Amino acid sequence: MTMHGSIRQDPVSHRWVIIAPEKANAFIQISSELSTKRWSEPARCPFCPGHEFAAEKEIMRLNSLPHLYRGWSLRVFPARNPLLKIEAEQHFAGDGIYDIMHRLGAHEVVVETPRHGIHLDELSVEEIRDIIRAWHDRFADLQGDRRFKYISIQKNRGDAAGGTVNHHYSEILAMPFVPSAVETRLKNATAYYQFKRRCVICDVITQELAVRDRIIEENDDFVAFCPYASRFPFESWIAPKRHMLYYSEMPYELYLPFAKIYRSVTLRIRKALNAPAWNMVIHSGPVNYDDFTHNPYHFYHWHMELFPRISTLSALPLAVGAYVNPTPPEEAAAFLRKMT
Amino acid sequence: MTMHGSIRQDPVSHRWVIIAPEKANAFIQISSELSTKRWSEPARCPFCPGHEFAAEKEIMRLNSLPHLYRGWSLRVFPARNPLLKIEAEQHFAGDGIYDIMHRLGAHEVVVETPRHGIHLDELSVEEIRDIIRAWHDRFADLQGDRRFKYISIQKNRGDAAGGTVNHHYSEILAMPFVPSAVETRLKNATAYYQFKRRCVICDVITQELAVRDRIIEENDDFVAFCPYASRFPFESWIAPKRHMLYYSEMPYELYLPFAKIYRSVTLRIRKALNAPAWNMVIHSGPVNYDDFTHNPYHFYHWHMELFPRISTLSALPLAVGAYVNPTPPEEAAAFLRKMT
Repeated sequence: MTMHGSIRQDPVSHRWVIIAPEKANAFIQISSELSTKRWSEPARCPFCPGHEFAAEKEIMRLNSLPHLYRGWSLRVFPARNPLLKIEAEQHFAGDGIYDIMHRLGAHEVVVETPRHGIHLDELSVEEIRDIIRAWHDRFADLQGDRRFKYISIQKNRGDAAGGTVNHHYSEILAMPFVPSAVETRLKNATAYYQFKRRCVICDVITQELAVRDRIIEENDDFVAFCPYASRFPFESWIAPKRHMLYYSEMPYELYLPFAKIYRSVTLRIRKALNAPAWNMVIHSGPVNYDDFTHNPYHFYHWHMELFPRISTLSALPLAVGAYVNPTPPEEAAAFLRKMT
Repeated sequence: MTMHGSIRQDPVSHRWVIIAPEKANAFIQISSELSTKRWSEPARCPFCPGHEFAAEKEIMRLNSLPHLYRGWSLRVFPARNPLLKIEAEQHFAGDGIYDIMHRLGAHEVVVETPRHGIHLDELSVEEIRDIIRAWHDRFADLQGDRRFKYISIQKNRGDAAGGTVNHHYSEILAMPFVPSAVETRLKNATAYYQFKRRCVICDVITQELAVRDRIIEENDDFVAFCPYASRFPFESWIAPKRHMLYYSEMPYELYLPFAKIYRSVTLRIRKALNAPAWNMVIHSGPVNYDDFTHNPYHFYHWHMELFPRISTLSALPLAVGAYVNPTPPEEAAAFLRKMT
C-alpha cells in the first residue's frame, strides 16, 4: 500500500513524516552546492595545494594518482579549531541537576582532493575509493580509544548545508557521548531486535529490494534507496547488503562497489536538483559501548544518509521532530533512476 | 560549576550540546525577521484586512480594541492548504515492516494582528494577551477530540525560520501521533519522575531561580531563561512557575503576566540581534494519551521555547542530534538582561 498524502513512520528513528505532495510549491530551491560565502577563491582556500602549512599536523596522506597530482591526492589532519580536543582530560560532572563534561574527543578534516571547486562526481571512482578508505582507517584507529563512544563521519557541502569552503572535505568527529538522535535509533533498533530477532535495517533493505519502487540503484554489495519516511525531498540512503554494525567492519573489497554507488547517487542528485547544497552522514554503531546487556553487534547496521538542502527548516521539524516532505519517496526514486 | 567550552546535556531532551565560544566567528547572521520572499506587500498579503475572503471558514474572531481596528483584532481559521485534515478518516496501517496513517488532524492559522509588517513587540500587552487567549481556547477545544494525540503551537517568523508572510501569524497543529522528539522528552521526564518523584522542568526552574546567571527576567508567575544546554545562541525558554502539564490548564489570570514576559523577551531578542528571524514553539503534554501507566500529569510541564535563526544547521545537529553553540547561555542571558 503506497498512499500519497500520508503520515509515515521511519522504523529506525521513529520519526513521523507528513508526506504532503500539494506543498511542492512551498519548497523553493534556496541552495547551490557551489555557493560558499568565504574562501571561494583557490588563492584563499585553506585546502588547496600550496597551503599545506594550514594543517597543524598531518595524520594521513594518500598519493594514489601521482600521474595526476604532485605530492598528494588526499590528506587528513586535525581540525584547526577542533570542536572536540584529543588532549582534554576525561571529566564528567554534575552541575546541580545538570550534566556537563569536558570537550574531549577528536575532530579531523579529510581533504578529499587537491582540486578546488568541482562536483564530487567529477572525481574518479578510484579517488572516491580513497576517501572511503581514509574514513575507514580513521574510524578504525579512533575506535581503539576507549574514551570515545560515537564516531560520526559527515560532510557539509555548500553554504545552505553548513559548508565553509568550496573544496571537497569531510569531517570525522569522535565524541565522548552517544548523541541523542543516535541513542533513540539504537533504542528503537534494540526493541525491534528483541521482538523480531532481526536487524531492523536488514529488514528495511529486504523490503526495499522486494518492493523496488524506492530503489535508486544497487550492485552486488550495496543498495541505494529513498527511505519510506524521507524527511527531505530526494533524501537518499546507501546501505551495505551484508549486516555490519561498524563502518570499520567494511572489508577492502567493498570499497570500490561503495565508491561506485556513492559517486553515482551524488551525480543523480546533482542532475536532478541542479547541484543543490547537500549533507552526508554515515551512521554506525556506538563504539566502546558497555551499557547494553545484549550484544550491540546484533541490532544496528551502518549506512550513509544523503540529503539535499532545498528547503528551510521551520519550527515543526526543529523543535518537535515532525517533518513535512512534499515529495513522496517513490517519485523521488523514480526521478533519480532516470538521471545518469 | 560553569565551564566555558564544555559539553552540556539538556535534562529534558537529553541532547548533548558542545558549547564552543571560539566558534563565534563561524556563526554569521543570515536572517532578518522582516525578510520574506513572497507576499511582502500588504496588497498581496492574505492576512491583511480586506482579504478576509481568503479564510475558508473562520473559527474565532476577537475585536478587543475597536478604537484601533475595525472589525477584528485577531482571527483564527483553518489553514488553506492544511498539513493535517480534520475530515480525514482515522486509519492506521502496516505497509510491510513500515507504519502509515491517514493525514487526520487539524491545522489552524492565528492571524495575530491586522497590522502588516511590524515587530511582535509593537503590539500592546493586551493584544498579545489576546493571542495567548486564542491559543488557549483552540488548544482546549482541539484537546476534546480524542483522535488527536499532540497539539503543537508554533510560529515561524522570517524566511530563515520558514515563515512565508511578513504579517504576524502562528499555527496550531493537532496531530494523530506524538512526534518523536516530544516522545523522547516524555520518556526522559518520566524516568526522572520515577527516580526523583518530581517534575524535571520544575527542578530546572528551581535551579535556574537559585543560580540566576541564566535568568533573563521573571515575574510572579513566569520565568524566562536561556537553557543550560542551549542549542542556539540566545535560545530562550519561558515557563510557568506553577506546575501545569497542558497549555490549556493555564487560568485566565496568568494570560497577562505571560503576555508581558513573552513580549519583553521577543523585544530583547530583537534588540540584541538586530531583528533576526525566529521560531517559537509551545511544548505541552500529550493529549488523550492512555499508554502511560503513571498519571501523565505528574511528569511534564508546558513551556515556550524561542530561538533566533542566525546560523545554518549542518549535518551534525540535523542527522545526529548533537549541537554546537558558540554562545554560552550565561553570556546570552547577561546580554539579554541589558536589553529593554
